[in-house]
Amino acid sequence: MNPHVVIVGGGFGGLYAARALRREPVRITLLDRRNHHLFQPLLYQVATAALSPAQIATALRRVLRGQENVEVALGEATAVDLATQRVLLRDGALAYDFLVLATGATHSYFGHPEWEKHAPALKTLEDAVDIRRRVLLTYEAAERESDEAARVPLLTFAIVGAGPTGVELAGALAEISRHVLTRDFRHIDPASARVILLEAGPRVLPAFPPDLSAAAQRRLERMGVQVRLGAMVTGIDAEGVSIGAERIASRCVLWAAGVAASPLARSLGVPLDLAGRVIVEPDLSLPGAPRVFVIGDLTAVKMADGSLVPGVAPAAIQGGRHAAESIRRALRGQPARPFRYVDKGTLATIGRAAAVAQIGPLHLKGFLAWVLWLAVHILTLIGFRNRFLVMLEWAVMYLRFERGARLITGDVPELPRAKQSDRAAG
Amino acid sequence: MNPHVVIVGGGFGGLYAARALRREPVRITLLDRRNHHLFQPLLYQVATAALSPAQIATALRRVLRGQENVEVALGEATAVDLATQRVLLRDGALAYDFLVLATGATHSYFGHPEWEKHAPALKTLEDAVDIRRRVLLTYEAAERESDEAARVPLLTFAIVGAGPTGVELAGALAEISRHVLTRDFRHIDPASARVILLEAGPRVLPAFPPDLSAAAQRRLERMGVQVRLGAMVTGIDAEGVSIGAERIASRCVLWAAGVAASPLARSLGVPLDLAGRVIVEPDLSLPGAPRVFVIGDLTAVKMADGSLVPGVAPAAIQGGRHAAESIRRALRGQPARPFRYVDKGTLATIGRAAAVAQIGPLHLKGFLAWVLWLAVHILTLIGFRNRFLVMLEWAVMYLRFERGARLITGDVPELPRAKQSDRAAG
Repeated sequence: MNPHVVIVGGGFGGLYAARALRREPVRITLLDRRNHHLFQPLLYQVATAALSPAQIATALRRVLRGQENVEVALGEATAVDLATQRVLLRDGALAYDFLVLATGATHSYFGHPEWEKHAPALKTLEDAVDIRRRVLLTYEAAERESDEAARVPLLTFAIVGAGPTGVELAGALAEISRHVLTRDFRHIDPASARVILLEAGPRVLPAFPPDLSAAAQRRLERMGVQVRLGAMVTGIDAEGVSIGAERIASRCVLWAAGVAASPLARSLGVPLDLAGRVIVEPDLSLPGAPRVFVIGDLTAVKMADGSLVPGVAPAAIQGGRHAAESIRRALRGQPARPFRYVDKGTLATIGRAAAVAQIGPLHLKGFLAWVLWLAVHILTLIGFRNRFLVMLEWAVMYLRFERGARLITGDVPELPRAKQSDRAAG
Repeated sequence: MNPHVVIVGGGFGGLYAARALRREPVRITLLDRRNHHLFQPLLYQVATAALSPAQIATALRRVLRGQENVEVALGEATAVDLATQRVLLRDGALAYDFLVLATGATHSYFGHPEWEKHAPALKTLEDAVDIRRRVLLTYEAAERESDEAARVPLLTFAIVGAGPTGVELAGALAEISRHVLTRDFRHIDPASARVILLEAGPRVLPAFPPDLSAAAQRRLERMGVQVRLGAMVTGIDAEGVSIGAERIASRCVLWAAGVAASPLARSLGVPLDLAGRVIVEPDLSLPGAPRVFVIGDLTAVKMADGSLVPGVAPAAIQGGRHAAESIRRALRGQPARPFRYVDKGTLATIGRAAAVAQIGPLHLKGFLAWVLWLAVHILTLIGFRNRFLVMLEWAVMYLRFERGARLITGDVPELPRAKQSDRAAG
């Protein structure tokens, strides 16, 4: 029987590892807690009511159905038993000959788990739908609130962290308030909403060169976002955010600050870095376990210049392909090669027709960078159907300033701090 | 100040009542528990993974934003106080001069509320997403189940009730198992799934003429659905359905049998029929309250021939327009006119390229009826954007036998009765 390759995680890393092994004499089991691959770079568009969940996610079985040597399994890995070569599940175990761990990262609240309840973060489809619900309900509550002063915290959106996700969220929320909702309410002017982007460091998009950070900040400010640099959040509760002694009253705080590796890393018994990431060998294998590979956001990989490979989709894809290549070489008795990350550039979008891009020495901003961002994201969306429909949604949105996915689902809302007045009965 | 018209419910009836009053000197408040209008006739397509929630729902504020005399309010009406002319909410009250009640129907389990847990019904977007999740997880559990006999109840889908919703669900489930999922699994053949449609009466689609019922049944059977007529369900639990002494083991039972009027009707203190519907005056007003109108599925309205106006979207739309017309006449001191339902025909779809239609004396079936069904549903979808995208989804689905919205969201699933085997580790 062919050797059994178990891949844990159906994100970019795991999926590309599985596909790269399609012609090899192996049996692959791709294990994930979810039945879908999620195109995470567009998750903020679901959170801001532009796209529907199904447009940025594809069933894993669907993606892999043509590949005969893969089996998709729905389940959650709780630990890895390296001694017996088994992945432990909540209700069983999977024995492996080769193992690829690609469970990615989750959000981190820097030792303040109690903040999560008041400031949700954006990692899963459920997070995105929850944030969408929270944002839309905040406007609803403001519309029902007749006291002018009580409306202010309802119309204040605070985003913690000015990395790509924070910048995207801030830009999209500013656009919604200024262009999308303009004529929808009778008692509030959505354009009076404040969107505040809080960043502890000295500039937005810290992974980009300073000139692009500056360009992004100028653009955000022109869109109406208040950018606050050097603002270290010290507290978050149901009423707002504290920055030292200062207080920002806000009923809708979103978290885009910290990431931490998936907790599966802790079960491996190997050294982790401060963010809980696995410190791997140069070939991405686990120290002491040459048939176990760890890829993507779950790892800390040093590049030649001493910096870390960034936690972005292209790095996960390259890691997945490298793990597959190492397995292929091992099957042929060849030694593994070290992983080399090829940086093809970095992109971040700010809003309608605005983005920044770094491609080697080339720095782009504005409309051109945005077109590039659009092209890259559409071309890499898994599944032709999604690609085509997302393009259409975007075209409609661009031309009409319209957001199609403005649904509040779930139980009948208890509006945040709304008082039902008899106003309408005047 | 202009008279205040309160409309409770943003379904077809309420929405069309609001729109019909757009030129009148009134202030309208449209109250709904949800922020969206739902195109209920296509709800089964969300439940069967063909469409996304946002494609059949539009934000009420979006639909009505051009209409200056309407205000949309998010909230739940708990009762009506006719004496003081107020709608009571969970956290306040709305005074009205005219009232239109259009809260529709909910599902009824014929005195067996304990069945609901095991056999969900289809009324809201949340129901649809829950049913989609249940259906997809059942296949996942079957794939993981290594015992042949234990797989049978996992691959048995039972639908209770063969009205339009039951027929649509049965047809769609049969198509999924035979065409969509064919190559997705490694251990089960989805085409071996049984879809059983249980109907207590003597034929499917009882509201249609007998020849169309027979045609629909033949078509369902050709698609692989087992149609069981005269099958009165006497019990439903986690393991399956009982029909008297007979037992059908099924881990996925769906309910499409009974409807009951929304519970708001009980607060009115007027006679209700057995299904809890309000027995209204010929002009749709509440007995003793000429400025309160009740429309759509919430009412029982007798036609000239003694039969009831059916609980379908066109009847709700006509009722909404009639209530608006009555308000308009009252404002001018004119007496109300009786409501006359105009039956423009009835349509039910069975599956890909198959439907039945009755338009007066004309009975259509097969492809032609399906094209008609398609045209009517696309043209009446509220909102151009949705219309266009739904058409595209359908085109893709038709050409490629593909279902785009195959997402299981929510917590990590506890698969129904799955045993994790070490099989894959072989």
